[in-house]
Amino acid sequence: MRAFMDGDFLLSNKTAQKLYHEAAAEEPVFDYHCHLAPREIAENRRFPDLASVWLGGDHYKWRALRANGFPEPLASGGADPYDRFLAWAETVPALIGNPLYHWTHLELQRYFDIHEPLNLQSAPAIWKAANERLEKDAALSVFGIFKKFRVFAVGTTDDPADSLEWHEKARGLTETKILPSFRPDQILNIEKNGFAAYLERLGAAAGKTITSLEDLLTVIQERIAFFDRAGCRASDHDLPVAPFAASREDGARPETINRGRWEKEIREIFTAALLGKAPNDQDCESWKTYMLDFLGGEYHARGWAMQLHIGALRNANASALQTLGPNTGFDAVQDNTAAGKLSRLLDLLHRAKRLPKTILYSLNPGDYYPLATIMGCFQDGAEGRGRRVPGKMQLGPAWWFLDHRDGMENQLRVLGNAGLLSRFIGMLTDSRSFLSYPRHEYFRRILCNLLGTWAENGEIPGDFAFLGPLARDISFRNAERYFYAP
Amino acid sequence: MRAFMDGDFLLSNKTAQKLYHEAAAEEPVFDYHCHLAPREIAENRRFPDLASVWLGGDHYKWRALRANGFPEPLASGGADPYDRFLAWAETVPALIGNPLYHWTHLELQRYFDIHEPLNLQSAPAIWKAANERLEKDAALSVFGIFKKFRVFAVGTTDDPADSLEWHEKARGLTETKILPSFRPDQILNIEKNGFAAYLERLGAAAGKTITSLEDLLTVIQERIAFFDRAGCRASDHDLPVAPFAASREDGARPETINRGRWEKEIREIFTAALLGKAPNDQDCESWKTYMLDFLGGEYHARGWAMQLHIGALRNANASALQTLGPNTGFDAVQDNTAAGKLSRLLDLLHRAKRLPKTILYSLNPGDYYPLATIMGCFQDGAEGRGRRVPGKMQLGPAWWFLDHRDGMENQLRVLGNAGLLSRFIGMLTDSRSFLSYPRHEYFRRILCNLLGTWAENGEIPGDFAFLGPLARDISFRNAERYFYAP
Amino acid sequence: MRAFMDGDFLLSNKTAQKLYHEAAAEEPVFDYHCHLAPREIAENRRFPDLASVWLGGDHYKWRALRANGFPEPLASGGADPYDRFLAWAETVPALIGNPLYHWTHLELQRYFDIHEPLNLQSAPAIWKAANERLEKDAALSVFGIFKKFRVFAVGTTDDPADSLEWHEKARGLTETKILPSFRPDQILNIEKNGFAAYLERLGAAAGKTITSLEDLLTVIQERIAFFDRAGCRASDHDLPVAPFAASREDGARPETINRGRWEKEIREIFTAALLGKAPNDQDCESWKTYMLDFLGGEYHARGWAMQLHIGALRNANASALQTLGPNTGFDAVQDNTAAGKLSRLLDLLHRAKRLPKTILYSLNPGDYYPLATIMGCFQDGAEGRGRRVPGKMQLGPAWWFLDHRDGMENQLRVLGNAGLLSRFIGMLTDSRSFLSYPRHEYFRRILCNLLGTWAENGEIPGDFAFLGPLARDISFRNAERYFYAP
Repeated sequence: MRAFMDGDFLLSNKTAQKLYHEAAAEEPVFDYHCHLAPREIAENRRFPDLASVWLGGDHYKWRALRANGFPEPLASGGADPYDRFLAWAETVPALIGNPLYHWTHLELQRYFDIHEPLNLQSAPAIWKAANERLEKDAALSVFGIFKKFRVFAVGTTDDPADSLEWHEKARGLTETKILPSFRPDQILNIEKNGFAAYLERLGAAAGKTITSLEDLLTVIQERIAFFDRAGCRASDHDLPVAPFAASREDGARPETINRGRWEKEIREIFTAALLGKAPNDQDCESWKTYMLDFLGGEYHARGWAMQLHIGALRNANASALQTLGPNTGFDAVQDNTAAGKLSRLLDLLHRAKRLPKTILYSLNPGDYYPLATIMGCFQDGAEGRGRRVPGKMQLGPAWWFLDHRDGMENQLRVLGNAGLLSRFIGMLTDSRSFLSYPRHEYFRRILCNLLGTWAENGEIPGDFAFLGPLARDISFRNAERYFYAP
Repeated sequence: MRAFMDGDFLLSNKTAQKLYHEAAAEEPVFDYHCHLAPREIAENRRFPDLASVWLGGDHYKWRALRANGFPEPLASGGADPYDRFLAWAETVPALIGNPLYHWTHLELQRYFDIHEPLNLQSAPAIWKAANERLEKDAALSVFGIFKKFRVFAVGTTDDPADSLEWHEKARGLTETKILPSFRPDQILNIEKNGFAAYLERLGAAAGKTITSLEDLLTVIQERIAFFDRAGCRASDHDLPVAPFAASREDGARPETINRGRWEKEIREIFTAALLGKAPNDQDCESWKTYMLDFLGGEYHARGWAMQLHIGALRNANASALQTLGPNTGFDAVQDNTAAGKLSRLLDLLHRAKRLPKTILYSLNPGDYYPLATIMGCFQDGAEGRGRRVPGKMQLGPAWWFLDHRDGMENQLRVLGNAGLLSRFIGMLTDSRSFLSYPRHEYFRRILCNLLGTWAENGEIPGDFAFLGPLARDISFRNAERYFYAP
Repeated sequence: MRAFMDGDFLLSNKTAQKLYHEAAAEEPVFDYHCHLAPREIAENRRFPDLASVWLGGDHYKWRALRANGFPEPLASGGADPYDRFLAWAETVPALIGNPLYHWTHLELQRYFDIHEPLNLQSAPAIWKAANERLEKDAALSVFGIFKKFRVFAVGTTDDPADSLEWHEKARGLTETKILPSFRPDQILNIEKNGFAAYLERLGAAAGKTITSLEDLLTVIQERIAFFDRAGCRASDHDLPVAPFAASREDGARPETINRGRWEKEIREIFTAALLGKAPNDQDCESWKTYMLDFLGGEYHARGWAMQLHIGALRNANASALQTLGPNTGFDAVQDNTAAGKLSRLLDLLHRAKRLPKTILYSLNPGDYYPLATIMGCFQDGAEGRGRRVPGKMQLGPAWWFLDHRDGMENQLRVLGNAGLLSRFIGMLTDSRSFLSYPRHEYFRRILCNLLGTWAENGEIPGDFAFLGPLARDISFRNAERYFYAP
């Protein structure tokens, strides 16, 4: 029996171990999509205790606590920090089979040098030891963590109206690049109540008042330029379902769209929305399609990557949304059909030669084959701005509810079977916590184990001179090349 | 090479073997969902021969016989029993890769001490030996079987109009609890021809005539009380697709439902149906939603669990339905989208604080991630009747066409990755046969193999004091706690 | 570490090795579905160089080249052959995890006795050595290849209007049977622009002018008889989604169809289409359903198998379709729901007792459980023409984007779990290339590894006298029996 989560954790053979320890582990981290608070970075935040750092904002853990029968104050907060920690310590052993079990122990090991399993018995000593480190150890400040984990860059998630002031303040304080990412969900979500009010804020960020579609497009262009100057290399969209619709009379194929008719309707839809009138479903989908088409072209012009996060069923528990707000652990996996509309949306941009580098994520693993094969239809690395971008279209890494050993291995296998695994830009944390960097280690171990197992079985050459660079590419170097490609 | 289906069958390592033999195997069986005939239990039925006990009502085997080219009399019956047995014996070797292959040999081993593979050559001797045991061995009566397999409880499947007389008669004859389960499919299926006639029977069971919606709801409450007194701890619903619709004008979100308008329409729909007028699709879905909302609240008040079996494509072969009737092996796996409506149905109950303990099954493994994450949005163990119910929302075990080694392991992994495997209430037979109890053994071996493999790999602590109770919980104890939780 | 792709490639244990080498490997090849050009067969074509034979028409490789950043002339052609070969050689190491990686090296090994990995370094020597063999080695002509790989039969893919002249010319030149397959997609695709023009060609092939529905049905019957005389044993349909619709007023269930009303509408739809008027979506689906019902009956009468290829998202990149045409690597996996309509289509034929032997393929692995269980509802081997056809309904082997180790193993497991693996008719190449025969070897290794692993684990008897014939059946003999069954 192997020791619990030792140095060769998840590495089942010698080739895998060598690949991880002598190649993948040495690479820096390009955490190209996360939800860290720029202010906490700029202020080089420190954390008072394990309850704060673990349970402060992590809705993954809140869900686990609820499923284990704990009342809300011990989950999302309100109760005494130590009580919350004890509830968590009691829940951890119940999480066998869940990635939180591994993440928790990787974090104890890597941040705190604590190697015993967390449970109610070990909880008091771990609380004491970890809190002492949090208080005294300089390596447990934000910048210390960045340095320790060799974080080359983090891609935060930012609204187009954001001032990016904290990104600005952070500049020069750490070697890690703090890159904003452009997430214009509120521009697309024309059906939401606050749409008109949001446009006021967006206009204000650019010193403008938005009263027409032209105004909006101009402001967007200015904000994109502003983000670009701040180092932005990627956008991000939350798309519960991929939209595709043009004008009310047009068919549902890019090649039959009457652009003039469509734009006329878009103006009407926009004008009505500014006056507080929500569009119907068809008009709403038409709006989202139009804006994604416009935004995609702008991203392409900047050499940005477009991230599409598809398939989240948001706020399934609507009463919890009312009391706790969004992103508190009440989302789930959607099962809509997605392939037809997504392919048309990409085709709309492609036929105008302005499809940007694109990363397709889905929360439903049943979407992986459709996504991986659709992206294969648009891999025109040689088009665009005159330079090859191998792997221009990417299957995003295992996301959220799929971010675990089985989900990652499945994503790697589907991508390998249907595309080019070797061009994969690898993992990200998608996290709100500064303790999440061992997730990159977790991914790299899984990757190296897969490659090593194939080599041990004679399915690929067991040649370290070949496999080592491959593991390094997927761990870091592909991402660096990808996001900085023109 | 390991011997064929020996004592360590499916247990690939020492930890798995120890977990199974020294923990899981010792636990009683809580078979909380099956289709055993209460009368056969009360009469402590014995079986004349292997053809009767194996082929009498098992449409899994009938399908296999048809697929192997045998005509209908040798499948669902009509031919000579020995001929039917020989057809089965010829088919068994062709079933490699199918759970029927393992079930058949586990049943030969555990019930008859026969350890050789069944095929045409071994068939005559096995026929003779097994039939002798069926005739003479007291352990092969129903009560003998219950005792041998330490069956703590069985949950039968019963119509609300059922008299439960055989449950009553069985009381005290066996130590096994014979629990009715409340399956009101005929109340929901307002579109079916016999709806009005069924309501007459249902009313009669409660000594009432149902002429209004109020009558129906009152009768349902009385029948629920009657089932409750008979020991019922769970309901069960067959939902080909999860419904969600309110009144014709209301939007499709729980928070926008106008209750008065909806109820007015429901009365109209019901009145029309009593007169034999089938509702249209929208009204039919509205009815099912309304009734599930009502029933769910009643289950909640009783502390019952609500089982939702989603995704069966019933009677795909409609001409076979006409000649052989339902449940004869002509059903399949549906592929409808389910997530959005299911989440709204649960939210409708949850927002009124009357969502019962719920077990979500699907026949399509593609639904597992949606279901496991949706259920995670409603795990308010601390709500309800003031007591914690950890794991209130359950992902049902691998069902029907998924009830095999790959299906079970997949269900365990998805549940582990997306929820709390440790709180899982485990397996059931879903069977019409008294020879099915080794399916619990089959499940426990697969469970212990998974846990043991994780431990051997260092992914979880290899600590028997920890893993043993976990294996016992999932094998039996969680189910006992769950169904008897208030 | 095992040597790279040695003789025991993919065979992880002794039982698997013995099963492959001493049983499966010895069987001939029945390549019942491929896209070989009959003319190239009849002319016993030879290939000038590796670029021609590998990159001439293989859109799988073109996609890989594009994903690796190469411009179109190096993918689908235009550039110098050696440059194209070098682009491919550079891409191969980037294909780790993709079946093209294994196929490429199996082809180098089996056709050219070249056992080193292909990459930029090894490319020049491999180019020289392989081209010499292509020029001089008689075994590398079409007939030589057929003989070397013991190809018993190939099923080409042919339009009903085809003269089958090259099939005729090939007769007697090789021992391999060159069987046409009847692929009437253009008859079903009434919505396409060229429909009327196609019917002219189809009529001409039968010496008729088609001016009525009766004419069309008569011509189809004549063409089926013509194909039958040429040895055809199977039809083939490309169905992006399974259709089911009858007349505009009828419900969507076979049992409620008013045949007279439907036929009247079909005549109107057909007459309009002959005049160039495309039908709307409902009418289009009605037409496809009607024609599949008619054609299925004709296939049944001939004892042909009906192949339904479901789930391709064709021409996702519509601008590439315009420049490069269809089948150039711009297709993907669809995610429509399919189960309900497919089951009704089969039921429509079944209730009239003219459902032919049927092979259900899907490009989406999420469809496997629905398909495998739907087919189980129609396994009436004893019906039809008075003879048993075990495994009448087949789950088609892993197709196109699923044609790889993981996809095949998944298909074998689902089929085993939900049906009779032992009756499976096995693999096909689906290929346009004469170098594809090692894909049968690839499949057989995966099959034998699965069977061998089960035996080694004690899950099935490790009895070569039993498993050897099973491996032979699935490798070849089931297919021979199946296609020549009445």
